[in-house]
Amino acid sequence: MPTTSEPTYGGIFDVAQVAHVELLSPDPQGTYDFFTKFLGMFETERHGQSVYLRAYEESYHHSLKITESPKPGLGHVGLRARSPEALQRRVASIETTGLGVGWTDGDLGHGDSYHFRLPSEQNFELFYDVDYYDVPEDQKSKLLNRPQKRPPTGVPVRRIDHCTFTAPDVKATREFLTDHLGFQAREQIVSDDGSVEIGSWMSTSLVVHDLAFTADPAGLPGRFHHVCYWYGIPQHVADAAELLREHGYVVEGGPGKHGLAQGIFLYVFEPGGNRVELYGDAGYLIFDPAWKTIKWKESELDWGAAVYGVVPDTFFTVVTPPVD
Amino acid sequence: MPTTSEPTYGGIFDVAQVAHVELLSPDPQGTYDFFTKFLGMFETERHGQSVYLRAYEESYHHSLKITESPKPGLGHVGLRARSPEALQRRVASIETTGLGVGWTDGDLGHGDSYHFRLPSEQNFELFYDVDYYDVPEDQKSKLLNRPQKRPPTGVPVRRIDHCTFTAPDVKATREFLTDHLGFQAREQIVSDDGSVEIGSWMSTSLVVHDLAFTADPAGLPGRFHHVCYWYGIPQHVADAAELLREHGYVVEGGPGKHGLAQGIFLYVFEPGGNRVELYGDAGYLIFDPAWKTIKWKESELDWGAAVYGVVPDTFFTVVTPPVD
Amino acid sequence: MPTTSEPTYGGIFDVAQVAHVELLSPDPQGTYDFFTKFLGMFETERHGQSVYLRAYEESYHHSLKITESPKPGLGHVGLRARSPEALQRRVASIETTGLGVGWTDGDLGHGDSYHFRLPSEQNFELFYDVDYYDVPEDQKSKLLNRPQKRPPTGVPVRRIDHCTFTAPDVKATREFLTDHLGFQAREQIVSDDGSVEIGSWMSTSLVVHDLAFTADPAGLPGRFHHVCYWYGIPQHVADAAELLREHGYVVEGGPGKHGLAQGIFLYVFEPGGNRVELYGDAGYLIFDPAWKTIKWKESELDWGAAVYGVVPDTFFTVVTPPVD
Amino acid sequence: MPTTSEPTYGGIFDVAQVAHVELLSPDPQGTYDFFTKFLGMFETERHGQSVYLRAYEESYHHSLKITESPKPGLGHVGLRARSPEALQRRVASIETTGLGVGWTDGDLGHGDSYHFRLPSEQNFELFYDVDYYDVPEDQKSKLLNRPQKRPPTGVPVRRIDHCTFTAPDVKATREFLTDHLGFQAREQIVSDDGSVEIGSWMSTSLVVHDLAFTADPAGLPGRFHHVCYWYGIPQHVADAAELLREHGYVVEGGPGKHGLAQGIFLYVFEPGGNRVELYGDAGYLIFDPAWKTIKWKESELDWGAAVYGVVPDTFFTVVTPPVD
Repeated sequence: MPTTSEPTYGGIFDVAQVAHVELLSPDPQGTYDFFTKFLGMFETERHGQSVYLRAYEESYHHSLKITESPKPGLGHVGLRARSPEALQRRVASIETTGLGVGWTDGDLGHGDSYHFRLPSEQNFELFYDVDYYDVPEDQKSKLLNRPQKRPPTGVPVRRIDHCTFTAPDVKATREFLTDHLGFQAREQIVSDDGSVEIGSWMSTSLVVHDLAFTADPAGLPGRFHHVCYWYGIPQHVADAAELLREHGYVVEGGPGKHGLAQGIFLYVFEPGGNRVELYGDAGYLIFDPAWKTIKWKESELDWGAAVYGVVPDTFFTVVTPPVD
Repeated sequence: MPTTSEPTYGGIFDVAQVAHVELLSPDPQGTYDFFTKFLGMFETERHGQSVYLRAYEESYHHSLKITESPKPGLGHVGLRARSPEALQRRVASIETTGLGVGWTDGDLGHGDSYHFRLPSEQNFELFYDVDYYDVPEDQKSKLLNRPQKRPPTGVPVRRIDHCTFTAPDVKATREFLTDHLGFQAREQIVSDDGSVEIGSWMSTSLVVHDLAFTADPAGLPGRFHHVCYWYGIPQHVADAAELLREHGYVVEGGPGKHGLAQGIFLYVFEPGGNRVELYGDAGYLIFDPAWKTIKWKESELDWGAAVYGVVPDTFFTVVTPPVD
Repeated sequence: MPTTSEPTYGGIFDVAQVAHVELLSPDPQGTYDFFTKFLGMFETERHGQSVYLRAYEESYHHSLKITESPKPGLGHVGLRARSPEALQRRVASIETTGLGVGWTDGDLGHGDSYHFRLPSEQNFELFYDVDYYDVPEDQKSKLLNRPQKRPPTGVPVRRIDHCTFTAPDVKATREFLTDHLGFQAREQIVSDDGSVEIGSWMSTSLVVHDLAFTADPAGLPGRFHHVCYWYGIPQHVADAAELLREHGYVVEGGPGKHGLAQGIFLYVFEPGGNRVELYGDAGYLIFDPAWKTIKWKESELDWGAAVYGVVPDTFFTVVTPPVD
Repeated sequence: MPTTSEPTYGGIFDVAQVAHVELLSPDPQGTYDFFTKFLGMFETERHGQSVYLRAYEESYHHSLKITESPKPGLGHVGLRARSPEALQRRVASIETTGLGVGWTDGDLGHGDSYHFRLPSEQNFELFYDVDYYDVPEDQKSKLLNRPQKRPPTGVPVRRIDHCTFTAPDVKATREFLTDHLGFQAREQIVSDDGSVEIGSWMSTSLVVHDLAFTADPAGLPGRFHHVCYWYGIPQHVADAAELLREHGYVVEGGPGKHGLAQGIFLYVFEPGGNRVELYGDAGYLIFDPAWKTIKWKESELDWGAAVYGVVPDTFFTVVTPPVD
């Protein structure tokens, strides 16, 4: 039996989580209905062309901001730092890259925020201070670890899980996230000779991924693949599949189980045109501090894509915004 | 909406996980059959009066050591440090407390190890170097994140999840684990006036607990409540309940859902007399870096104990070893 | 191996199903909200002090009639005959017993109906002609075997499953149902010496029970134990348990699995005070035409009551209407 | 609301069930291992080139006979009549068609049997007397409605559910089964103009189908599509998918949910080359005695084939035995 002889584990523990995502929608009312009537999310505030939503097990002001826009796609991603000092450390590091955009005084729901762009050009921000949502007294749960009662609405999601994007150069984006924000590559897809990084699943904690990137099918920057909300219960993705399809939504694929991250998945398009994943399991957690990035060769993708169920062709081609 | 103004998040990130537990059994063959024939675990090695087992999604040499003994109870718990340096830092800290026992050159499956006793007198060890189990080629899974194929045996568990103990003084043990090993109290049970800490659920990561302690019903030290193995799928605890009871095992309680940690539970006694929990959900994960310990008052335990299902009276009285 | 030598299987195939049940409620609005907001049922009509509801997979006008009343309990049960001729045959048979009440011209949702009382004094009616509910076009499902889309409301039940009552003399009621309506006893509870019939589960098809009777704890006639609605999916009873309890409903017991009929159960009290069961499985189906009634002795009730989960004491004592 | 005015429901109640199926296998050991090691079935007897298996919730001698043969395909299907008189009535009716083959004195597990061929040339037999399997005392379940304990082996199936075949002329076969054996068409696939019957799902009870026929892709007679075993629990088909695929079996499609019959399906090829379905739900039951056959037009098959999940192309082309 081989014995570990890895070097010192240093690590950057400064980014705590994906706190929210902003989706652009040309059909904001349709997008709103999808998330509130069928996925059980709650509106917490509206401002300008945007509406803010949260799920019943989320304690912050929002995890989803829907903003009216001519085209679907990503507005931005909000990351929360682990502490005010952690925030400062990460900003200092990002500023060395030339990818920093600068500080704002925040948005509804959080405080001062540092904006930057990934090498793949998606907009991100990093902040520490957040607003916790004041759940109305009659909606508070007696489950002290759940901010709000489970709503009798749709198949209600519990919390945001992760976001996936495409990138012209996956490796460059992954290295930026690793070097400056502390994300670790947990699983990857690589060309059979190992020379090209085709996809990377990254996290700052023991989940397999908070963020993932795959090669953009058109080689374009700044595009969005999906945001994932979490159930943790396999039956719920089947329930959602049936409910959403009966009510006219386009279920793209699933339920199935990815080999990558062992995630039980459902993919559906919200009416604005963006892909949403619903997650039926915790997948697996990575407790091993000497974890070596798992590398799926392209020729192993039969298993990597799906243990069971089918990942449809559109999954590899449809990204928002669409190419004109 | 209140805004966070927590101080700097420092934190100790040096302990990665509960790597294994040693159970003492007066019926080692019965205990072995229970874990191998019905929970699908594999024997990896035998030595002296001990046998070592692992689950199919575990990569290390073992997560369970069964040792023949006149009485049931805990042998010891093995924690893995995050790095060699982390190990040294923690040992230095423990040595200031007088609770250190000293270094050994390890056991089957891991390298040099530092032994110590908790204030509640359970035996623990801390190490970094581990042996990864060489899965036979024909048993390797094409799922690259799964070391071994799911076995067609019983309702197979996936990995160790957590251990729970009793303590004469929960607060003293919790403070030791927090101060010297970096465990954070995620949820607690306290007396209604808040003056007595009756139970503490602690983790070093975003799971709710790796270790938990509740007040010992007889005020005794060194006792063991249960070890928990993980499925992550609610149906599997129902399957295990039916299978185990039909084959003559004593199912103590469940399936049900604890309010505490939102864990979907099943409790069963292995033939040696120790309680084993089987876990059907990831519960919830704690991404908020400013998480405030949840405190369940005794008068709120109706919800804390169970959202649904029944936690039986024996759960609060039967601990191993039994009082003579 | 023994070979069957049963006599000719004659059998009465004249009763098709339990078509509906009328519940009496002192809190009709509360009862209505329970069934519509949390169990996803639809109002189809109102008349006088009554409201009529159906589930989304039911094609008839209603399966539940809620009628305002000073006390909870059963209004009546509506059985559907297999044909007009079958209806006439059963009425002729009932009329020989002196338990017939007479014909009415029906109720909302069905045609001419013959009323009668069981030996245990519950009110029943038997009819053939039914009204099929005209589902609004935009609510029709593309699943041709489902009348209406699954609603995004609560944890929606699919159809009525069975009704359970208490009786001063279970045997007398069971014999009436067998001799005059063709119900077969599928499972029973009997005293250990076999002399007393304590409970009988009866059906006219391959399900284990459409109707069940157990000994009334107070020796009273005419009382109601529960009506059961069907999910067929085990997770849904856990979902319902959590949702209903969070919203203030009294979950009496479950989720669990009865040994009797192998039903995955949840019991909850609707606000009017009547017990409602939610069923998470088809249990098992009886295809064997020479099926011999299964007889559980009282001393075997540990398994008969529950394979897992707990059937609470109130299950054996609380019946509606309550004793004054 | 329309009122029913159907004519008298006559009906033939003489066939109780599909009691067993004989599969031909060019790899009988592989077929045997598949059913016993991974689907938890038990060998009850061997004779000549055949082995007999049953599932743990089946009370008869066998539901599956595996016979060595150069090619995969159907040996025969065994139907059980409801009574000796019912058997005689059906034989008399079949004899009027010229499709009768004649009486035999039975096989291991059942008594005198009448053999006949369908218009589509599959071999069938009909009998009444059956042998109940004597479960060894230490394997008997305390669940009195379950003959044998759930085995700790694979993902164990509970009972045979249905068989599906192809036919050169679906209508001719369906009419034979309806007129002479009492099967009712519950759902059908028809050409868009309604003139061609492409598939028929038939039962003699309230399940949607005991037998189903679809148009043979090569216009050939006597071919076999699949035999289905039942779990009744959705998670179990996902468990089986993962387990079987990891151990090298070919999972053709699923888990998914057919619109037709609302069956939660998994399709896998056993090593002999025959398709086996595993069923994760009871689908729905037909209690309405005036049920009108549901007719799916070809253009509605998007929903008829799958509510979710994908039915693969091979499902429509691979039938056993293969065309030379």
